[in-house]
Amino acid sequence: MPFRRIIWISVLKDQRETARTEAFSDGVIAFAITLLVLNLKDPLLDPALSQKSLFQGLLGQWPAFFAFVTSFATILIMWVNHHNMFTYIKRVNTTLLFLNGLLLFFIVLTAFTTLLIANHVGLKQSSDGTTAAAFYSGNAMILGTVWSTISYYCAKTGLVPAGPGGYRFLVGPLPYAIAFSLSFLNAFLSLVVVLVIAGFWTLASRGFWRTALAQAT
Amino acid sequence: MPFRRIIWISVLKDQRETARTEAFSDGVIAFAITLLVLNLKDPLLDPALSQKSLFQGLLGQWPAFFAFVTSFATILIMWVNHHNMFTYIKRVNTTLLFLNGLLLFFIVLTAFTTLLIANHVGLKQSSDGTTAAAFYSGNAMILGTVWSTISYYCAKTGLVPAGPGGYRFLVGPLPYAIAFSLSFLNAFLSLVVVLVIAGFWTLASRGFWRTALAQAT
Amino acid sequence: MPFRRIIWISVLKDQRETARTEAFSDGVIAFAITLLVLNLKDPLLDPALSQKSLFQGLLGQWPAFFAFVTSFATILIMWVNHHNMFTYIKRVNTTLLFLNGLLLFFIVLTAFTTLLIANHVGLKQSSDGTTAAAFYSGNAMILGTVWSTISYYCAKTGLVPAGPGGYRFLVGPLPYAIAFSLSFLNAFLSLVVVLVIAGFWTLASRGFWRTALAQAT
Amino acid sequence: MPFRRIIWISVLKDQRETARTEAFSDGVIAFAITLLVLNLKDPLLDPALSQKSLFQGLLGQWPAFFAFVTSFATILIMWVNHHNMFTYIKRVNTTLLFLNGLLLFFIVLTAFTTLLIANHVGLKQSSDGTTAAAFYSGNAMILGTVWSTISYYCAKTGLVPAGPGGYRFLVGPLPYAIAFSLSFLNAFLSLVVVLVIAGFWTLASRGFWRTALAQAT
Repeated sequence: MPFRRIIWISVLKDQRETARTEAFSDGVIAFAITLLVLNLKDPLLDPALSQKSLFQGLLGQWPAFFAFVTSFATILIMWVNHHNMFTYIKRVNTTLLFLNGLLLFFIVLTAFTTLLIANHVGLKQSSDGTTAAAFYSGNAMILGTVWSTISYYCAKTGLVPAGPGGYRFLVGPLPYAIAFSLSFLNAFLSLVVVLVIAGFWTLASRGFWRTALAQAT
Repeated sequence: MPFRRIIWISVLKDQRETARTEAFSDGVIAFAITLLVLNLKDPLLDPALSQKSLFQGLLGQWPAFFAFVTSFATILIMWVNHHNMFTYIKRVNTTLLFLNGLLLFFIVLTAFTTLLIANHVGLKQSSDGTTAAAFYSGNAMILGTVWSTISYYCAKTGLVPAGPGGYRFLVGPLPYAIAFSLSFLNAFLSLVVVLVIAGFWTLASRGFWRTALAQAT
Repeated sequence: MPFRRIIWISVLKDQRETARTEAFSDGVIAFAITLLVLNLKDPLLDPALSQKSLFQGLLGQWPAFFAFVTSFATILIMWVNHHNMFTYIKRVNTTLLFLNGLLLFFIVLTAFTTLLIANHVGLKQSSDGTTAAAFYSGNAMILGTVWSTISYYCAKTGLVPAGPGGYRFLVGPLPYAIAFSLSFLNAFLSLVVVLVIAGFWTLASRGFWRTALAQAT
Repeated sequence: MPFRRIIWISVLKDQRETARTEAFSDGVIAFAITLLVLNLKDPLLDPALSQKSLFQGLLGQWPAFFAFVTSFATILIMWVNHHNMFTYIKRVNTTLLFLNGLLLFFIVLTAFTTLLIANHVGLKQSSDGTTAAAFYSGNAMILGTVWSTISYYCAKTGLVPAGPGGYRFLVGPLPYAIAFSLSFLNAFLSLVVVLVIAGFWTLASRGFWRTALAQAT
């Protein structure tokens, strides 16, 4: 077999493995993002609200909607960055496979922490609301940490080009740590911060990847 | 590296990115369409119906079946059009990525508005039925608007060929606006209109894409 | 652009469309088959069984397990045949897209009819058990009919090679019609017939596709 | 048609079939792993716990979290091995398709056995806890057996290179048999063993596939 063909086959094989890891991750992320909708419930099924109209019940459910939007935005921007990162990664090794598994674990767990927010956070402060917000932003903080670890690992091992922006992801857990701290003061405010972070990453990721692409060309 | 190969690799990379966006969207849409089935429940689990036979209970559940069919048809035709549109799109930019995310958000939300229809709309008018129908058709109207925005954006930026039919999607939200208005008069009728719109797009999309393909050749 | 390249690009495009239809169908089928597990419930959550041990409760739940196995086997063999059929289909047109959508609709509906079986069918005859079994086998019969229609359409339009076995799928709804008729006599027996049919197709499909492949070569 | 092209097309077709089987399996596995999150419930919805704070409720739910982590890890390592195995498999026959279906069946069933663990296993021994742990580890033992059967079948028929490690997977069900036996002595301990096995396979699979790849080169 000529040498060029061996390289070609090896490249194809690496790409196929990478593609399958991407596909599996996309599957899990797509399910996790869709499962969030199960946290929205018919408000009139709650006996405490059975006297109210559906419209009043839905209005009263606004924290569930807010949590749904926040989690959807957070998972979507993670998918976009995951997608962008994997356009660089040519080869997946076992370490990356399990770091990726850890990322997926906490993305899936978001469906549960969102449920806690939907059931326990409102404009009124309550100790249960604080607990829910702390679990929600705590989970987001872990996600940021895992994400930074992956970025660091990929940059260190040369899986993605380092560049000036390569380590920018290291700040990942910091804003979430602020949201986590805030959750003990005001549960709702910490949720707003998580949504703002998602919006920030949306804008930042556009610039970041454009720069990275420009450098790579 | 010869110039031709660079272009080839660049085309492959764009196709891979586009393919992954398609795959993620397909995952979310496929999941959202399948989750609709969870809105169909065993009628005898409802204590109010425990005296009835299963057959009577299932007959009484016809609004849930009707909503299931309507939402399935609506999401399916959206998938078909999404599929057709992406056969033109060669390159996904960040703006399209987030417009696509917005589309997915309201497609996923359809599972919730369908639940409201299943629980609250019947042949008898009721204020809760009106609320449910307004949320259902309102969500469909937003979907039509997002869809038109994507069409307009793709046509304007040249991501898909404009042609005479290129702006036809701009009428997207109009029929849904009619369904939304109707929901305040008769909840069930507005649901029928949404089903009719899905049927119309089914026929229209066949002609539209055939014309577009003929022009492109 | 040389003529050969145009053909090549056109072939690639057709394959990509076909591949995406396959991927979407696979997504829906994979979700539908996995959602079946939600029909298995913790028996001790049922207040009527709270006095029993978990083991007794699980034993008493055998119809739910039986329905789970039957539906899993039925959907899996449909996926295998779908998979085999699509190895022939080179080009997907809109008619096939919507026939495929109809097939997916009734595959998704299987999760609901399985739920009815799990809740209402036992060794004792009951009118609710009859209703559940009639809906279950009736849904399977419609699936068989849609499947035959797709086979007939593909054979007629030359999308798959006709051959002697090409029309064999036309018998699709017949055995399910027997199961449907039986459901009015004995609900459990009709369920056994559906499982036997799945087993039969498993064996038949092996021979059928081997013959078809041999003819195609 | 020149001979080389026929072989090339045939290889492409085999790869496409294999890729679709992988994609379907990945879909089911990704879905099954994500559905596990539904076993985590808002503890305050349980009337018995309504007096407690959310934090106390979540702490009391630790067996559900432990079962979630264990099942996530078990399914993930199975996916990694499935992924690795399929990098060798060039051609999928019907026997492998159905063995794979059997594997998916028990992977999907894991969501149910995890639910039983979440509801019935704690630090206190109870007969229901024993039942739940026996079903959980019993299901894992069957998974190990199916997995060994697939490995044996692939090695025997030459679908994957045999090598010295080729039969190592035959030990698959053994550690799970130990976990199964332990479940009758101490339910929680058997769960710990299942988690340890997942950790062991994680380390073992790294070495195993590296050796196999080295031999193949």
